[in-house]
Amino acid sequence: MKIEIINTGSELLLGSTLNTHGAWLGQELLGLGLRVQRLVTVPDGDPIREALKQSITDSDVVIVTGGLGPTSDDVTREATAEALGVDLIEDEHAVRCIQAFFDRLGREMSDSNLKQALHPVGADVLPNPNGTAPGVYVPPRLGDSSCAIFLLPGPPHEMHAMYHAEVAPRLKALTDLPEDYGVTNIKFSGIGESSFQDALDAKLHKFPELEVGYCARPGELDLRLIGERGVRSQAAELAMNTYPKQYINEDGLSLEETVVSELGKHGKKLALAESCTGGRVSSRITDVSGSSAVFTHGYITYADEAKVEMLGVSQASLVAHGAVSEEVAREMAKGALENSKADIAVSVTGIAGPAGGSDEKPVGTYWLAIAVRDGDAVRTSAEKKCSPHGREIFKLVAGQAILMKILRQLKPV
Amino acid sequence: MKIEIINTGSELLLGSTLNTHGAWLGQELLGLGLRVQRLVTVPDGDPIREALKQSITDSDVVIVTGGLGPTSDDVTREATAEALGVDLIEDEHAVRCIQAFFDRLGREMSDSNLKQALHPVGADVLPNPNGTAPGVYVPPRLGDSSCAIFLLPGPPHEMHAMYHAEVAPRLKALTDLPEDYGVTNIKFSGIGESSFQDALDAKLHKFPELEVGYCARPGELDLRLIGERGVRSQAAELAMNTYPKQYINEDGLSLEETVVSELGKHGKKLALAESCTGGRVSSRITDVSGSSAVFTHGYITYADEAKVEMLGVSQASLVAHGAVSEEVAREMAKGALENSKADIAVSVTGIAGPAGGSDEKPVGTYWLAIAVRDGDAVRTSAEKKCSPHGREIFKLVAGQAILMKILRQLKPV
Repeated sequence: MKIEIINTGSELLLGSTLNTHGAWLGQELLGLGLRVQRLVTVPDGDPIREALKQSITDSDVVIVTGGLGPTSDDVTREATAEALGVDLIEDEHAVRCIQAFFDRLGREMSDSNLKQALHPVGADVLPNPNGTAPGVYVPPRLGDSSCAIFLLPGPPHEMHAMYHAEVAPRLKALTDLPEDYGVTNIKFSGIGESSFQDALDAKLHKFPELEVGYCARPGELDLRLIGERGVRSQAAELAMNTYPKQYINEDGLSLEETVVSELGKHGKKLALAESCTGGRVSSRITDVSGSSAVFTHGYITYADEAKVEMLGVSQASLVAHGAVSEEVAREMAKGALENSKADIAVSVTGIAGPAGGSDEKPVGTYWLAIAVRDGDAVRTSAEKKCSPHGREIFKLVAGQAILMKILRQLKPV
Repeated sequence: MKIEIINTGSELLLGSTLNTHGAWLGQELLGLGLRVQRLVTVPDGDPIREALKQSITDSDVVIVTGGLGPTSDDVTREATAEALGVDLIEDEHAVRCIQAFFDRLGREMSDSNLKQALHPVGADVLPNPNGTAPGVYVPPRLGDSSCAIFLLPGPPHEMHAMYHAEVAPRLKALTDLPEDYGVTNIKFSGIGESSFQDALDAKLHKFPELEVGYCARPGELDLRLIGERGVRSQAAELAMNTYPKQYINEDGLSLEETVVSELGKHGKKLALAESCTGGRVSSRITDVSGSSAVFTHGYITYADEAKVEMLGVSQASLVAHGAVSEEVAREMAKGALENSKADIAVSVTGIAGPAGGSDEKPVGTYWLAIAVRDGDAVRTSAEKKCSPHGREIFKLVAGQAILMKILRQLKPV
């Protein structure tokens, strides 16, 4: 099935807004086993006419986002009727949808909004509970076209909700895929990309009916499995058993969401002592709603004095081994655990760069340590890692390593 | 001048990679007074052939990104020669560029890389100091076409550098714009979008030759001025004088980069006490290379006990006024200043949500305070704000407010 996407919106071409619709729809369609063959972005107004005519000729399905608003620049509806050679009529169902939206807001509907109720004759109205613009579905073989057309609103939260409620079920019906066909995304961290791919390719080729994809991000590798549910589960289990220590989740949550959830399940409190990551890990943890139940103290000890004053790191260790050392990492974690009275404390100290490296400790070197209670004693362990690919990636990758350390403490394998 | 962009890359349509090239190029071209009339994204391989043929017919300039690699999927060069009706030849200059790149890395060049030296006869080689793929410039009126064509590599850092060095000067030569025509972006924070736009529209209409644009982001408003240098300077000064307290910069730096730079210029050290922002502000400060010279201590006091233990906030204030209060914010800032011995300390305490709000203190409420030394004494001031648009935007907006507080302390108006 040939699918094209048309995104309308001058802001997408002026660079003031990043086009996220293409990637979002690409991922959703992939979950239905469908691929986008072309994506065209055009400014508001007339350029949609030309783009639509061409896409309808070339494809089986066209999904258009944007241009459904009430202003004169919003011409997606008109362009569609024109391309199909059918009339536009004011649709009563659409009028009611728009009226209902204004009623919920307690606001008066303006006359210009009635334009949004215009629909090509024979098309379905797609309700929009989150905005004023109803969507449009043109089934195949309407007017001059054999192409199925979806017109969706531009604002992301409106478009996403309408896709799930109205578009995905219709696309499923247009394809012959089994009901339980779909996509599973499994996240891992801490493996080299090529060895990961080689190892899994070797094992997963025994599922020829499964489509396998890989996606590498800094500090994370995603395995994408597309197929029927049964074979996806088998393959997912095989992948997890291949890399149990590196396994994060397959439920779509972020690593930090999984960590916060596991801390909650185990009733454990967390403290963080960050030097080179400068608060990034604490910030990721506190991005998760409800994190205040499990995260209490964060120590950002960017300067040596801060390590001494806030965490009780010894001057002797700093002098003998330097701030980026196993000893200092362990003392930081221990100090954070004791000062905060948390159950688990993790520390990180390293050289984010671009300055500050040496032959012995090149830019990108970091030590991370974990401290946990063991009866009345505190047990620490530490490891050394390196990520020499710039400050931004350093913080991301070190953050992943820290969060994985916490996850494996809570869910050992 | 009609300009089209073609982005090739299957990952852009599968949703695994966000297409940032369109927005980036759109913004750069706007700075030359040029607008993109269409952007087409196609998968790797053959689809580029069709897309290129059509864009060359419809436009004066076509910019293609991607598909210049050494594999069989990389067919942008072949497709261009085909569309122009000219031959591909191995270009000696291109071979030397590729060889030089491998020499710098100390690696052996493989035979497949020689494919990257193929060029349409009559086209210019665009050197790529950051990668193996040289770019291509096809001047207008080569072969069957009257269109100027740029072929650029896909990796963003390679593409950006080549655009600045090779593409922008050639585009300038193709247009009739004066030498000092360009764009100025001015950043502000802490103003409502519509009053900002109304106030500046009223003042800037006295520069009819200037093109004015606005872009609103959470906690930041950008004013874009396009025109000749003289009129841009006058308009920029007028805008700055209209909102002097809200002015950030016009040099393209981020707010945190400006804050770190000003701290350095004034020889001041900073400490941060964050509750509801959970380390986000410290992380933004430490994103800036060289921040270790000005930022020493960050206290993430997510729990009440952490505020008491780490910052000496009084139990009495917590009980009498609650954690989200002027008193606690002031005590947090004062404690951070005294414990860290910094020159400036800023604190924030609030309700990020979605839970934890009340009638008196709804979700989104936050207090921020600043503490500075005044002889031997410590002077504090505090203010209350609200950002009720979800956790992510809350952290961003509160972060902007904190950083602006520091900036105005260093650069008062």
